Amino acid sequence: MNENKHTLSMTDRARLELDGVQSVISFREDAAELETKLGALQITGESLHMEKLDLDDGKVILTGRIDSLYYPGEPDENRRGFLRRLFS
Amino acid sequence: MNENKHTLSMTDRARLELDGVQSVISFREDAAELETKLGALQITGESLHMEKLDLDDGKVILTGRIDSLYYPGEPDENRRGFLRRLFS
Repeated sequence: MNENKHTLSMTDRARLELDGVQSVISFREDAAELETKLGALQITGESLHMEKLDLDDGKVILTGRIDSLYYPGEPDENRRGFLRRLFS
Repeated sequence: MNENKHTLSMTDRARLELDGVQSVISFREDAAELETKLGALQITGESLHMEKLDLDDGKVILTGRIDSLYYPGEPDENRRGFLRRLFS
């Protein structure tokens, strides 16, 4: 794991390991939304289960059936937002 | 790499390594569709570039900006289809 990166690793659509997660916005059996270092990440699936959550480490592990992963924003949106707030 | 698995590994939404890919259905700068061992996989993004394609090994590496990954079917759809054909 690298603290400065957002990485994602999925095996057989059944196990999803994420690094670089900042917070869990919502979690349900069929959908989850996470805030990552590169913007929000929406996950859909079935029988989703959070196996590990360690936000100090930025790590989340989900199991279940993964159907989709979607980043609605630009990869550097957060950073730009941060700079906007910093210099406005 | 494990020949019997479909794995996916993404770093910073910029590099996507896939195993268990059977064919490339379509490829454009902003979208790609692959056939994997666990069904079709639709990828959207920007400036997508295929860095490696080795279907003997089931391996594809894409770079660019990844926005979404979507499996429209069931994970075992292919296998069920195969069994249906085999026993019908």
